[in-house]
Amino acid sequence: MLQTGILNPHVLELIARVRHTNTLVIADWAFPYWPEIETVDISLTKGIPTVLDVLDLLTPVFKIGRIWQAEEFLITNTPETVDRFAKSFGGIPLTREAHVEFKKRVPDAIGLIRTGDATPYGNLVIESV
Amino acid sequence: MLQTGILNPHVLELIARVRHTNTLVIADWAFPYWPEIETVDISLTKGIPTVLDVLDLLTPVFKIGRIWQAEEFLITNTPETVDRFAKSFGGIPLTREAHVEFKKRVPDAIGLIRTGDATPYGNLVIESV
Amino acid sequence: MLQTGILNPHVLELIARVRHTNTLVIADWAFPYWPEIETVDISLTKGIPTVLDVLDLLTPVFKIGRIWQAEEFLITNTPETVDRFAKSFGGIPLTREAHVEFKKRVPDAIGLIRTGDATPYGNLVIESV
Amino acid sequence: MLQTGILNPHVLELIARVRHTNTLVIADWAFPYWPEIETVDISLTKGIPTVLDVLDLLTPVFKIGRIWQAEEFLITNTPETVDRFAKSFGGIPLTREAHVEFKKRVPDAIGLIRTGDATPYGNLVIESV
Amino acid sequence: MLQTGILNPHVLELIARVRHTNTLVIADWAFPYWPEIETVDISLTKGIPTVLDVLDLLTPVFKIGRIWQAEEFLITNTPETVDRFAKSFGGIPLTREAHVEFKKRVPDAIGLIRTGDATPYGNLVIESV
Amino acid sequence: MLQTGILNPHVLELIARVRHTNTLVIADWAFPYWPEIETVDISLTKGIPTVLDVLDLLTPVFKIGRIWQAEEFLITNTPETVDRFAKSFGGIPLTREAHVEFKKRVPDAIGLIRTGDATPYGNLVIESV
Amino acid sequence: MLQTGILNPHVLELIARVRHTNTLVIADWAFPYWPEIETVDISLTKGIPTVLDVLDLLTPVFKIGRIWQAEEFLITNTPETVDRFAKSFGGIPLTREAHVEFKKRVPDAIGLIRTGDATPYGNLVIESV
Amino acid sequence: MLQTGILNPHVLELIARVRHTNTLVIADWAFPYWPEIETVDISLTKGIPTVLDVLDLLTPVFKIGRIWQAEEFLITNTPETVDRFAKSFGGIPLTREAHVEFKKRVPDAIGLIRTGDATPYGNLVIESV
Amino acid sequence: MLQTGILNPHVLELIARVRHTNTLVIADWAFPYWPEIETVDISLTKGIPTVLDVLDLLTPVFKIGRIWQAEEFLITNTPETVDRFAKSFGGIPLTREAHVEFKKRVPDAIGLIRTGDATPYGNLVIESV
Amino acid sequence: MLQTGILNPHVLELIARVRHTNTLVIADWAFPYWPEIETVDISLTKGIPTVLDVLDLLTPVFKIGRIWQAEEFLITNTPETVDRFAKSFGGIPLTREAHVEFKKRVPDAIGLIRTGDATPYGNLVIESV
Repeated sequence: MLQTGILNPHVLELIARVRHTNTLVIADWAFPYWPEIETVDISLTKGIPTVLDVLDLLTPVFKIGRIWQAEEFLITNTPETVDRFAKSFGGIPLTREAHVEFKKRVPDAIGLIRTGDATPYGNLVIESV
Repeated sequence: MLQTGILNPHVLELIARVRHTNTLVIADWAFPYWPEIETVDISLTKGIPTVLDVLDLLTPVFKIGRIWQAEEFLITNTPETVDRFAKSFGGIPLTREAHVEFKKRVPDAIGLIRTGDATPYGNLVIESV
Repeated sequence: MLQTGILNPHVLELIARVRHTNTLVIADWAFPYWPEIETVDISLTKGIPTVLDVLDLLTPVFKIGRIWQAEEFLITNTPETVDRFAKSFGGIPLTREAHVEFKKRVPDAIGLIRTGDATPYGNLVIESV
Repeated sequence: MLQTGILNPHVLELIARVRHTNTLVIADWAFPYWPEIETVDISLTKGIPTVLDVLDLLTPVFKIGRIWQAEEFLITNTPETVDRFAKSFGGIPLTREAHVEFKKRVPDAIGLIRTGDATPYGNLVIESV
Repeated sequence: MLQTGILNPHVLELIARVRHTNTLVIADWAFPYWPEIETVDISLTKGIPTVLDVLDLLTPVFKIGRIWQAEEFLITNTPETVDRFAKSFGGIPLTREAHVEFKKRVPDAIGLIRTGDATPYGNLVIESV
Repeated sequence: MLQTGILNPHVLELIARVRHTNTLVIADWAFPYWPEIETVDISLTKGIPTVLDVLDLLTPVFKIGRIWQAEEFLITNTPETVDRFAKSFGGIPLTREAHVEFKKRVPDAIGLIRTGDATPYGNLVIESV
Repeated sequence: MLQTGILNPHVLELIARVRHTNTLVIADWAFPYWPEIETVDISLTKGIPTVLDVLDLLTPVFKIGRIWQAEEFLITNTPETVDRFAKSFGGIPLTREAHVEFKKRVPDAIGLIRTGDATPYGNLVIESV
Repeated sequence: MLQTGILNPHVLELIARVRHTNTLVIADWAFPYWPEIETVDISLTKGIPTVLDVLDLLTPVFKIGRIWQAEEFLITNTPETVDRFAKSFGGIPLTREAHVEFKKRVPDAIGLIRTGDATPYGNLVIESV
Repeated sequence: MLQTGILNPHVLELIARVRHTNTLVIADWAFPYWPEIETVDISLTKGIPTVLDVLDLLTPVFKIGRIWQAEEFLITNTPETVDRFAKSFGGIPLTREAHVEFKKRVPDAIGLIRTGDATPYGNLVIESV
Repeated sequence: MLQTGILNPHVLELIARVRHTNTLVIADWAFPYWPEIETVDISLTKGIPTVLDVLDLLTPVFKIGRIWQAEEFLITNTPETVDRFAKSFGGIPLTREAHVEFKKRVPDAIGLIRTGDATPYGNLVIESV
């Protein structure tokens, strides 16, 4: 059986369909529901799992070309949280924009992975290289 | 939106169908796949989430009448892990039996929640009062 | 098994998908059918269950940010009924508007729970915080 | 629109398929889930609606030839409850038997209507004339 | 089992979904097929059953607020047929309009019941109160 | 469009699948529901349509090799009804047997057409040549 | 079993849904695929069956009000082929138009029957009376 | 587009799934319907297409290891018909057996292609090498 | 069983539906995912299979009228690769255009076959004669 | 997007469901079709891809506890082929048994990946640790 990395069949199947220029949403527990977007809901409860649990499993196997995040993230979180995200982002180009702009990217995404993350504005849109 | 406890739509829907005398499996990352059992897979990776993450969210809202666990659990885990499970079991009647017997209960279950738990023999069968 | 609160699997599954800024309709027995909206029909007969049966079960677990109601509700019901609804609304911000405006909110809702409530203009649109 | 009696589309559709000698289960909130039986779940919460809410709507339009009930019903309920059920049963032939026997009838039923009824042993199996 | 009135499971299920201001088409044998409209086809052959077979079963249980009919109905049928329809319409408000206008109402209907009726322009659109 | 004979799409599709030695049930309004048999329900109400409405449309196009009927039919109906059926049977070989035996043929049928016929023991099993 | 005429269950089911003013395409082997049109593909190989195999089975039972054909048919086929089609058309009103116009009728058709016919521009659109 | 041989998408898809030791039925117009067998119905009418139309398209691309046929075929057909089949069988090993035995092979087949062939006992079971 | 050429059931079924003027995409491993296009994914890993593996199997049986390719293909590949593609294209008319223009053809395609080909700009759109 | 290893969404989803003691079939081009087994068909043509293409991608990420192979493999292949397989098997325990025994393992498998491999007796059953 698979030994490491992402073990969830539906998550694996979804990320294998996300290719060049396609985008994927990694959503926190409170992100609106978008019935028109294929959603893999692996949330259990508030805080389990987190957005970075997902991102940190993706980066070794899935080449991300760009990340979008709401700029409100910076002022609603502690420096520790901001740093923690930055560490996971590594060298991937990052664009912060108003949350209202950020949400306009969602309808074009190939899918959305819902987590239980309770970080304010913790949602990410990632674009495949 | 729902504020606490289980947030996952499919998990909620499943546990609402489990009633008097019905059983439910909470499976670790390695538990065999049973195609004939409705499965909600909320595993992300090894260790996320755990069987007790699920059990601890169930006990406040879902009255469990009995728990089964493989007796091999006792000898393959540290006393700390055994204690951690015991704490979550609380006063719920517990039956330990050989893993080979334990697995015979699975085909009668209403559903199975797959976690990423890496505890050896971490699987549980719970029976509703 | 689940002991209190909402027991219906489909209702639970629906409300777990309604998140930040999403809306939900709680409809009385006569509210038009909207084929394009996911509908959970738990009506049995005229009067069973009521809109407030549903609302009173939601408020302890589901944080509502705002409620809309047709303003015609005020003039077609007795003060006792108006008070009864007000009690259930508690401190949740409430907007009353013409029924014709109220109905324009329905196509954007994530789902609709149909009751058997016979209160004139008893329908509610609730928005998640 | 339909004015009286049963308003629920799925309940109506189900009872229209139950014909001569077919049986139907009206289940209380705690009755086990039987995945192999078509189930219409109109439970909202404990007590809403009741088994007799359903039965009293059926008897005027649906000719019942026989009712089965667990005999444990008699000793776990107050005389008032027993009388209340008797009133709804009217002149329909009634068979009480051990709950363990009663449950053996379920796999042959055409469908099951789940209520929120909290009456101990409140479940009924009804057979169409 | 159901004793009188409409016995067809699909017809019952459909009319239970038609509520305040929703419309329903009762079509004759020749009415165009509208793939986008939910259709219950209970036609057997030319003349079985008729539009009035359906209407006469609906009016005792389903409150109709308004009926539309093609005005061509008046000149293509005998006075006896016109009287027969009028008797079934009773006091329900009736609007006759050009068939080409009448057909524009179909896409907004919740459903269509196809009969075998051979009455020229025998089709009806009914609106629920 | 089709001008005569059977107009119902589902009935036509079913009878086109019934071939050499296959059987088909034409059921009255009260015949038990058999979930495991493909059922085309064209019943509207008690008496519409009848079993002979269906049979008389089948015989010109569908070659029947044999008909089974419950022998109870003979003693529960008037001579006029018996004659009416005999006329429709024509020269097709007919076997009457106890209703309890007749019902054992149903699980092997390819399909069942449900009518609204109220003739006691009006059900037929027909076998294709 | 059915003895003559069209024996294919899906073809029969489709033509029973085509009614007054609805159109149907009978396509040759090369006609473009239209994913949005219900297609019954009874082609086996080039030449089996032909468009006229289908048309000649339809005309005795299905009243056609009008036929459209590409005008290119006239110049790409032999007089014998043109005559053969004319014989099958009989007295049904026929409109020939440029193929590019002809194809614009397809999206409005109720269905398409694909044959293996290799006649250049052999496709037909037929409209029910 | 495909130029020669089998053009039917469903037939192609089926034969691509029939592999070593799997069997396939090529059925005449009258062969019983077997609901449990995947059926591709390309029959149009009696005689179109034939069993040999299918077989002759299969043999160039699909290696057949063995053919079964009912022995009744020999005495119910003319020598010309028997010869015509023999020519199509070529050197493929052929087993003739009583029709009642032949039919026992059907439930193990991967699929059934229904033709309109009117040859008595014209059905074949073919086994892939 | 099928002996040569394309063996994949889904690929065969798809190409049998692509007819005159319809287009098909043969995509490399990185081509964006288009949820609205029927996709047959036969990729295994980077390099298996290739776009030319597919094309070379298509050309003997499927008549291609025209091929489109991104003009970026010419400058991002070695002369050997360009020659290798040219050899497979043979005499089929070829149009090279900017990749951004090339991608606009995708939404009109009947389907997309995804390979594992790692050739930069290796994607093709083929149009059936 | 995923960069290395298995890229096929369905293959990834399947192997993520194969866990402790579950088995998976990797089949060559000729292996019988088992309708009751979930099948991912990535065959393109004879030889593309191979069984070892799949196995070699699995072993780095999927821990195999045991491999079964038909013993006929040894005598129908060259030493080079036998060596090539042995190299891919590495240290995984291997059981060779008669093909007729080997095939009895298939109905218990969780899934089957069909390749185009033309190696005689090239099929494998792998069991997860």
